[in-house]
Amino acid sequence: MNQYLRIDEWAIVEEGFDAHTHELSESIFSIGNGYMGQRANFEEAYSGSSLSGSYMAGVYYPDKTRVGWWKNGYPDYFAKVLNSTNWIGIGVEIDGVPLDLHKVKVHDFVRTLHMKEGYLSRRFTATLEEGKEVEIDAIRFVSKKRQEIGAIRYSIKPLNFSGSIRLTPYLDGDVVNKDSNYDEKFWLEVSRGTNDTSAHLTVKTKKLDFHVTSVMEYCVTKNGQVLPIEPERNEREKFVSHTFSVDTAAGEELVLYKYAANVTSRNYGLGQLLPTAEKLVQEAKTAGFASLLQEQTDAWADVWKEGDIVIEGDPSAQQAIRFNIFQLNQTYSGEDDRLNIGPKGFTGEKYGGSTYWDTEAYCVPFYLSTHDPSISRNLLIYRYKHLEKAKENARKLGFTKGALYPMVTMNGEECHNEWEITFEEIHRNGAIAHAIFNYVNYTGDKAYLGQYGLEVLVEISRFWEERVHLSAMKDKYVMLGVTGPNEYENNVNNNWYTNRIAVWTLEYTLESLNYLSTEEPDRYRELTERLRLTEEETGKWKDIIDRMYYPTDEERGIFLQQDGFLDKEIIPVRELAAENLPINQKWSWDRILRSCYIKQADVLQGLYFLSDRYDRETKKRNFDFYEPLTVHESSLSPCVHAILACELGYQEKAYEMYLRTARLDLDNYNNDTEDGCHITSMAGTWMAVVHGFGGLRVTNGRLVLNPVVPAQWSAFSFRVVFRGARLKVTAKADAIEIVNETDIPADLSVCGNEGTLEPHGTWKQERVLV
Amino acid sequence: MNQYLRIDEWAIVEEGFDAHTHELSESIFSIGNGYMGQRANFEEAYSGSSLSGSYMAGVYYPDKTRVGWWKNGYPDYFAKVLNSTNWIGIGVEIDGVPLDLHKVKVHDFVRTLHMKEGYLSRRFTATLEEGKEVEIDAIRFVSKKRQEIGAIRYSIKPLNFSGSIRLTPYLDGDVVNKDSNYDEKFWLEVSRGTNDTSAHLTVKTKKLDFHVTSVMEYCVTKNGQVLPIEPERNEREKFVSHTFSVDTAAGEELVLYKYAANVTSRNYGLGQLLPTAEKLVQEAKTAGFASLLQEQTDAWADVWKEGDIVIEGDPSAQQAIRFNIFQLNQTYSGEDDRLNIGPKGFTGEKYGGSTYWDTEAYCVPFYLSTHDPSISRNLLIYRYKHLEKAKENARKLGFTKGALYPMVTMNGEECHNEWEITFEEIHRNGAIAHAIFNYVNYTGDKAYLGQYGLEVLVEISRFWEERVHLSAMKDKYVMLGVTGPNEYENNVNNNWYTNRIAVWTLEYTLESLNYLSTEEPDRYRELTERLRLTEEETGKWKDIIDRMYYPTDEERGIFLQQDGFLDKEIIPVRELAAENLPINQKWSWDRILRSCYIKQADVLQGLYFLSDRYDRETKKRNFDFYEPLTVHESSLSPCVHAILACELGYQEKAYEMYLRTARLDLDNYNNDTEDGCHITSMAGTWMAVVHGFGGLRVTNGRLVLNPVVPAQWSAFSFRVVFRGARLKVTAKADAIEIVNETDIPADLSVCGNEGTLEPHGTWKQERVLV
Repeated sequence: MNQYLRIDEWAIVEEGFDAHTHELSESIFSIGNGYMGQRANFEEAYSGSSLSGSYMAGVYYPDKTRVGWWKNGYPDYFAKVLNSTNWIGIGVEIDGVPLDLHKVKVHDFVRTLHMKEGYLSRRFTATLEEGKEVEIDAIRFVSKKRQEIGAIRYSIKPLNFSGSIRLTPYLDGDVVNKDSNYDEKFWLEVSRGTNDTSAHLTVKTKKLDFHVTSVMEYCVTKNGQVLPIEPERNEREKFVSHTFSVDTAAGEELVLYKYAANVTSRNYGLGQLLPTAEKLVQEAKTAGFASLLQEQTDAWADVWKEGDIVIEGDPSAQQAIRFNIFQLNQTYSGEDDRLNIGPKGFTGEKYGGSTYWDTEAYCVPFYLSTHDPSISRNLLIYRYKHLEKAKENARKLGFTKGALYPMVTMNGEECHNEWEITFEEIHRNGAIAHAIFNYVNYTGDKAYLGQYGLEVLVEISRFWEERVHLSAMKDKYVMLGVTGPNEYENNVNNNWYTNRIAVWTLEYTLESLNYLSTEEPDRYRELTERLRLTEEETGKWKDIIDRMYYPTDEERGIFLQQDGFLDKEIIPVRELAAENLPINQKWSWDRILRSCYIKQADVLQGLYFLSDRYDRETKKRNFDFYEPLTVHESSLSPCVHAILACELGYQEKAYEMYLRTARLDLDNYNNDTEDGCHITSMAGTWMAVVHGFGGLRVTNGRLVLNPVVPAQWSAFSFRVVFRGARLKVTAKADAIEIVNETDIPADLSVCGNEGTLEPHGTWKQERVLV
Repeated sequence: MNQYLRIDEWAIVEEGFDAHTHELSESIFSIGNGYMGQRANFEEAYSGSSLSGSYMAGVYYPDKTRVGWWKNGYPDYFAKVLNSTNWIGIGVEIDGVPLDLHKVKVHDFVRTLHMKEGYLSRRFTATLEEGKEVEIDAIRFVSKKRQEIGAIRYSIKPLNFSGSIRLTPYLDGDVVNKDSNYDEKFWLEVSRGTNDTSAHLTVKTKKLDFHVTSVMEYCVTKNGQVLPIEPERNEREKFVSHTFSVDTAAGEELVLYKYAANVTSRNYGLGQLLPTAEKLVQEAKTAGFASLLQEQTDAWADVWKEGDIVIEGDPSAQQAIRFNIFQLNQTYSGEDDRLNIGPKGFTGEKYGGSTYWDTEAYCVPFYLSTHDPSISRNLLIYRYKHLEKAKENARKLGFTKGALYPMVTMNGEECHNEWEITFEEIHRNGAIAHAIFNYVNYTGDKAYLGQYGLEVLVEISRFWEERVHLSAMKDKYVMLGVTGPNEYENNVNNNWYTNRIAVWTLEYTLESLNYLSTEEPDRYRELTERLRLTEEETGKWKDIIDRMYYPTDEERGIFLQQDGFLDKEIIPVRELAAENLPINQKWSWDRILRSCYIKQADVLQGLYFLSDRYDRETKKRNFDFYEPLTVHESSLSPCVHAILACELGYQEKAYEMYLRTARLDLDNYNNDTEDGCHITSMAGTWMAVVHGFGGLRVTNGRLVLNPVVPAQWSAFSFRVVFRGARLKVTAKADAIEIVNETDIPADLSVCGNEGTLEPHGTWKQERVLV
């Protein structure tokens, strides 16, 4: 926990430089545009602790995996997002001495992430030897409009001396990944070169042959006048630079504008990489920095128009929720259906940048409500494209049919190797099925089922069919040896959530098949023939639906997290002495596993996902039992509890849960944000506000809203898109207002009142507690 | 499976050289004397595949551990026995060409492990270029009488040519471990030097500072006459050698006698290492090869006198059982209570050479019956000395009291890191307690309890006390989150065996305390005060004994391996198609865990350990249920089944089980003996014969024998020592004869007949089936 940032509703502001929080700030002030991202590393040299990170979406490396004891079925590699060519670098020497913030006195340091406009700025004064003072003002962004382009405006002003300033803009492909399993470097040089005012570098990954070409262009002004430059041009392996010196008098401002284009072989043929990058960077340079920045501001204005949340009376919460929305939009823009959302986005290496079930469980709802449906559809198609790999994965584990999606993946192959997760945390298959339901239910795009969705549903259902078996003892279907969402239990039998989501998948698959057979009979025939779907199979699914075993405790009226859960010692978290928390740091794994403590929503995850299947009393009994046992040591946990707490009228609990994620990174709540921001949990925070306090659901094609305003806020409003309409929902303690900002009507149900909100209409009602 | 060795009752013989089986032979033909060991690597250079292994007992390295995902409580290192200075090396050049069996034609190759006499020989003819034929005859051994001494007789005879033979005896400390986690070398040079006919090298380990000094001496004869030698003396880092050439005519025999002393800082101060080694090697050289070899033969004659087994009518079984007894005696000689028995002994690196529960469960019974009680007592004292570390280990996992012995250890610290094993396979604590019972019961040495045993028992009991808890649901004590002996189940609740051995420990601890309070009241007072043992504690133990929960199936009348076992699909192994076996190679870990298949005896292990607590019918019901589900994919499994099968009269099953381990290494049954022999399972094979077919038990101070002769044998006999008496037991189909070869009487119970066998007396009776 480290609260060092200034509260500002539209910006993240760090005042004063502290080397101890620099890596943390490098994460928080990261910039990205869905195509590439950049940690807030300094342009100039920095000899203090720093985690360099320049990431190109989808460019990864299958690193040799580290494992003590091999188990059959483990994958051969762990994929990791690659730290790739450093395109931001600018060497700065003043009278022959390199500028290095680790070695000089720094005053008036302000680093600002301008969330409204989408750029990063940094301004400071440094006192060099002999008392020379120099002011630096740096701005940079990665363009939302021109995805391959990054631009930097780097201003240097000697305040009290005249001297020679030597600048070295460069491209450096000789970079490392901190998480390289065997300290290996992953890049090889393909080609490099320098021209009059540009330089280029093409590198490729040692495996998989991803090529990245970077081209830089620049120009220099003094007091606004372009300077003619005759640089030295330097090259060495995986490195190109220009170097030049400018004599500058006190008070004069020297500005280097650096433009870089980064293109990859994911999008272009190898022969096109260099010409394309050269063309793009020339166009950017021609447009000029000011014009690019205006484009950027315009592009971000569009984002906020669709997905902003306004919180009144709580600037800290306001800043936090905007930061979360901002980072989510920096991470995934949705145009490219080969991409997905890593838990750290472009802000760090941890978790390898790969795809987890976080996407389906937490991110899809965010994108559904804040973007055109095509964006979340692309997240679904990503999994559709991996279906063959998921089938292979199931075969590898010994299943004769069906698909098991991987726990962690880059290209559809599993790349995680803890048996209790990789092989057992199979509920991820359910989340992937549920995201299809979610998408179709929210958007009304039922055509998706016939096009892509059903094929995935059928293969997942086949997996569940084979994964359960009829217990002779119980005469019920059971599912042995799983790990539920609560990863503080491993290898349990009959995890309620997994059993339930499996049966729900079968139900939804049958329902969808039924829909298709009625509404698209030709497609139905074609699909079932190709999939060789038999009545024997669907009959088996019905039998499993009818005869699944669910562990329950009749006395307490609750679902049991797994068989034998009540054999544990049940002591609420609040009765643990503080020194025990967080248990994942204080306790041995052995003790954690045997304890009753829950890392993240498990039974409650099911009650959230399948909300309409359970009545309020059932939810309440389970919440009252499990919430006190939950330690929320996953950043993905509190949001689900917040949403259920809202629904159950536990407003204080809801707000407590909301607080646990809202400023997770800004206040470094878990002491690990220096590794990168918790991007996917940011979607959870959004859900806590919109699904929780906003009470948003979609039922029978109608947008349901049941807002409650936390006592700490005077009001809040959020924008959502729903079936073409963009709605601004404002909730106050006593009133709700909904404005339709589009030409498309929207069917609503607000605190129980159903109706249609006409184009550009306003819906007002007093808030009624339901 | 690879049957390439000639059957011989007293020797292992390989005829013909095959590079493909060379590494396998390197394991099988290993020599050792409990202090050091040596794989059957060639003296001369060999460029084919080979695993070099020269091991000094107790000299290990704490290698950095390899793990993908860290769990709290994991150890920092994995200890491994070190491949240390190669003292056998002799470079051989014939007319300038190095002799290398990978590059020349080899005829009449015979490698022989002379088990009766305790040495290795190798003889062959090699055809060099231009048709030169040379005959090599090499003999070597590590001395049982002079533990630091290894001796080699290396004979070279040109058969059809005259030429120059250049020999280079050397010491090479620049060696690697194949299983180095990060390909690191573990040795540093301390000092080296060469003298007229000797050379010395001292190396030390990079961590822990183990020093090993090796000194070599040699002499050379031609046709039996000692040759004066003026060698070149060469040195480089971690390497010393002498080189000389001898002109030799066809038919002349050149013999190099090489003597090496290897001493370690485990036994001598650093300043004493070199002088001691020099003295020892001089003494050996002075004694001469023939005399050392005679000492060796005499020493091994003593071993066979105490522990031989003779099988009549089955030379293959005869060879196998002698091989097992031979290797066990090569591995552990019992003088040094800081040493123990690694699963591979001195025959390979796998499993790090560390101590597992194998020692207590399998090896102690062997040493109890075939050696002076001091030998097995030292195995027990090894654990006594580790008690403080075992207490630390329990603290590390969060226990406030008691001791948890490590799963794998070199110095008492845990050095294994799979959570499901390290943290959960805690039944090892029970085996360590049971070995104390076993020792006291067999030897009658009750004084051991007061001296060492009870302290260990109390701390283990305290661990169990804290590890169980009262289930509110069951109103019984339960033990959650364990892995039983069957490692094909992980993280189960209420493993019957673990619950049972825990309660047995409490019972035996209380019984032993009771004994001490009566028989040694002063010691009792002293001990209980020092241990601060309270009546509250022993009261709690009694409560646990009274109210432990044991999973059972009333209908089948069996103990359940764990909670929920009967929810599995129960299909006997015999109904699996052959391509599924072994499941540890053919199935994913996921599938194995969910299956009903049992790696090694689990419930049945308990029925064997606690044999006198269960009646025949109970054993039979459990055996009939679990045996068909057991895949025996641990080399430690079949022996327990063999013993129970004998007891239950399932003679065919017993013999089938016996066959599965008897020739495990000789026939490379598991295709992994090239990594080293399965030393600890060899003790299991011995148990299968003596406890199984011999029916040996000790009850009320009486040696119980109930021999049954397998149909495949005409008779068998074995020698055991029992309370000072050495007995030779001979069983034929229709008669049993027991000869007391000592001056000490022995109380026996033979097939139900009790009596005392007087010194040098013979007991004869007809065999009666019981």
